[in-house]
Amino acid sequence: MSILRFETLAHEGAARRGRLTLRAATFETPTFMPVGTQATVKALEPWEVESTGARIILANTYHLWIRPGPELIAARGGVKAWMRWPHALLTDSGGYQVFSLAAMRDIDDDGVTFRSHLDGSRKRLTPELAMQVQAALGSDIAMVLDECPPGGAGRDHVARAIARTTQWARRCIEVPRPDYQARFGIVQGAIHEDLRLAHLQELATLPFEGLALGGFSVGEPLEDTYRVLQAVAPQMPADKPRYLMGVGTPYDLLHAVGCGIDLFDCVLPTRNARNGQVFSWHGRVNLRQARHREDDGPIDPECGCPVCERYSRSYLRHLIHVGEMLGPRLLTLHNLHFYASLMKRARQAIGEADYRRWAQEAVRRMREGDEVGAQKA
Amino acid sequence: MSILRFETLAHEGAARRGRLTLRAATFETPTFMPVGTQATVKALEPWEVESTGARIILANTYHLWIRPGPELIAARGGVKAWMRWPHALLTDSGGYQVFSLAAMRDIDDDGVTFRSHLDGSRKRLTPELAMQVQAALGSDIAMVLDECPPGGAGRDHVARAIARTTQWARRCIEVPRPDYQARFGIVQGAIHEDLRLAHLQELATLPFEGLALGGFSVGEPLEDTYRVLQAVAPQMPADKPRYLMGVGTPYDLLHAVGCGIDLFDCVLPTRNARNGQVFSWHGRVNLRQARHREDDGPIDPECGCPVCERYSRSYLRHLIHVGEMLGPRLLTLHNLHFYASLMKRARQAIGEADYRRWAQEAVRRMREGDEVGAQKA
Repeated sequence: MSILRFETLAHEGAARRGRLTLRAATFETPTFMPVGTQATVKALEPWEVESTGARIILANTYHLWIRPGPELIAARGGVKAWMRWPHALLTDSGGYQVFSLAAMRDIDDDGVTFRSHLDGSRKRLTPELAMQVQAALGSDIAMVLDECPPGGAGRDHVARAIARTTQWARRCIEVPRPDYQARFGIVQGAIHEDLRLAHLQELATLPFEGLALGGFSVGEPLEDTYRVLQAVAPQMPADKPRYLMGVGTPYDLLHAVGCGIDLFDCVLPTRNARNGQVFSWHGRVNLRQARHREDDGPIDPECGCPVCERYSRSYLRHLIHVGEMLGPRLLTLHNLHFYASLMKRARQAIGEADYRRWAQEAVRRMREGDEVGAQKA
Repeated sequence: MSILRFETLAHEGAARRGRLTLRAATFETPTFMPVGTQATVKALEPWEVESTGARIILANTYHLWIRPGPELIAARGGVKAWMRWPHALLTDSGGYQVFSLAAMRDIDDDGVTFRSHLDGSRKRLTPELAMQVQAALGSDIAMVLDECPPGGAGRDHVARAIARTTQWARRCIEVPRPDYQARFGIVQGAIHEDLRLAHLQELATLPFEGLALGGFSVGEPLEDTYRVLQAVAPQMPADKPRYLMGVGTPYDLLHAVGCGIDLFDCVLPTRNARNGQVFSWHGRVNLRQARHREDDGPIDPECGCPVCERYSRSYLRHLIHVGEMLGPRLLTLHNLHFYASLMKRARQAIGEADYRRWAQEAVRRMREGDEVGAQKA
């Protein structure tokens, strides 16, 4: 059996419905991967994450490398056995967190030196080490170490980061891996279509099982993201899964699905839940607002998740208002249900060649309902 | 049908196994009531609390009175309907929190004036209001407003508090109540056996459906608590449930059951869980300690709760160590399972006239295993 199999089941324009098979799980795409940074999708047990429909989650290599360390996790059979997640796992390379969290960083052609954001200790990450740590974590999909320039980086800076990312990608491929672990390359290029397309062409020649678009949602204008996605995503190899890293709102996901993206991850549904914001078919709802105090209705009558079945906005608002842990927990569960069903309906619509119409209508309804004062995603 | 029915099913010395029937639930005693201060047992959904075996929980009148207010909750059908707890609920009177949390308090014969610990606003609680708020909250058992003197109070202070508590108890009885709501009186007297017994005699003449012992665990030496319990609990009316308020460790519960106590509540299993401390048949375990880093065993192989079935000490220690919300949640679930099964085994032992031997042996095993450095309960 191969490490990864990807079939497309239906197309509509650039959008596609597919089926991705890894050793650990088979699931349809487009799909959203909940973020389980420290080997836990915050506040939820794995069976609850599973109950939302998720069959693949993401864990962050940087965090687990720092605490508790890859040796400890490898000795427990990997992240999945340790946390009791029975389906598929994708790990990032750790690079993004080194660039966004670490106190000091010094990048050179061989790797990046930085200080841990926890204890200030000096650490060094190289492409080889990133792959070795991911092998120890036992993920089903490992990401190459890339250089992700900050949002405001100039074209020259971006071009240099691309060259280095390609060099590092080649080195990652040389590292031995577990026989079940797929490897994805990462296309950089910020909002420069030509740089993105050139980088894509380079990486497409390398033996990756899938390709990702990195370096979005780093501060660039949303219209640039949308434009570049539209230009680049449809040009990615059609026979491999396409992964848009770290994006985004339900609107962003529906746009990207229309461009042919298959896989997503983002902290929005989980992080915003902890701040009292929920997503729904009627737009974003901020449960911190006093208007929900006496609202006996569910978050979304169309939702059907266990939270919408059981609890009123009034009660959920109380939990958030008084700082009870059950609040973030329930809102996280709802939001992950919502993201999963957004992707499920997208797959159905593509299968029925109705995606374009359905997505426009879904966006229209969500935009109409977005609460004034709802926290910006 | 009466408001409350209590039958004793078995005796061994002062210890008794009973069955308590309220309109909302029937359950056997001795039983432990998990604390759901703000209309939520912290971190858990009601069905999880139920899964531990609990059929009655406690909510704090003070907190719910301040936020979101009794009117809002009454309009939602009471605490139970609002939070989706399908079994029985006991509310305290709010007095204890006024004495322990409020910034300023000024007690007189009519009631107590204080400032909210949240916004400093001036509030006044009287026996009548305490009962009215509890009626609005819709609890199955309401507690009278009492005066609980601080741990170091002198005998005269305690005697005055007793006199006032009796006066207030009489006033509470005059307040109309929902037809399903039982009322319990509260015996004070600190560590003075004679005062306790005299107060008990007074309250026993009033038409309460049950009696409680208040004013323990307020800083007095544990041996005094144990001594007074042994003297007073067996003298409480045999045909009514006996409730020991706010106590305590597994050791305390086993001692008190031996003295004839039927009902308990305490924040220990839930609060200590949030600090990484779990209870087990082999004593207290502090999961913050590094010794659990690579321990692949469960908290307690004898436990059988979902947490012990699924997760290793290594993983739970990681969750606590890195501050993940799932940690407190899982440890709370385990601890409530443990407290419930402690009471279940106590009931079985009483039924088999084996309580004295069983409790001694259980205490011996727990004491042997108590971790050095385990957080003091």
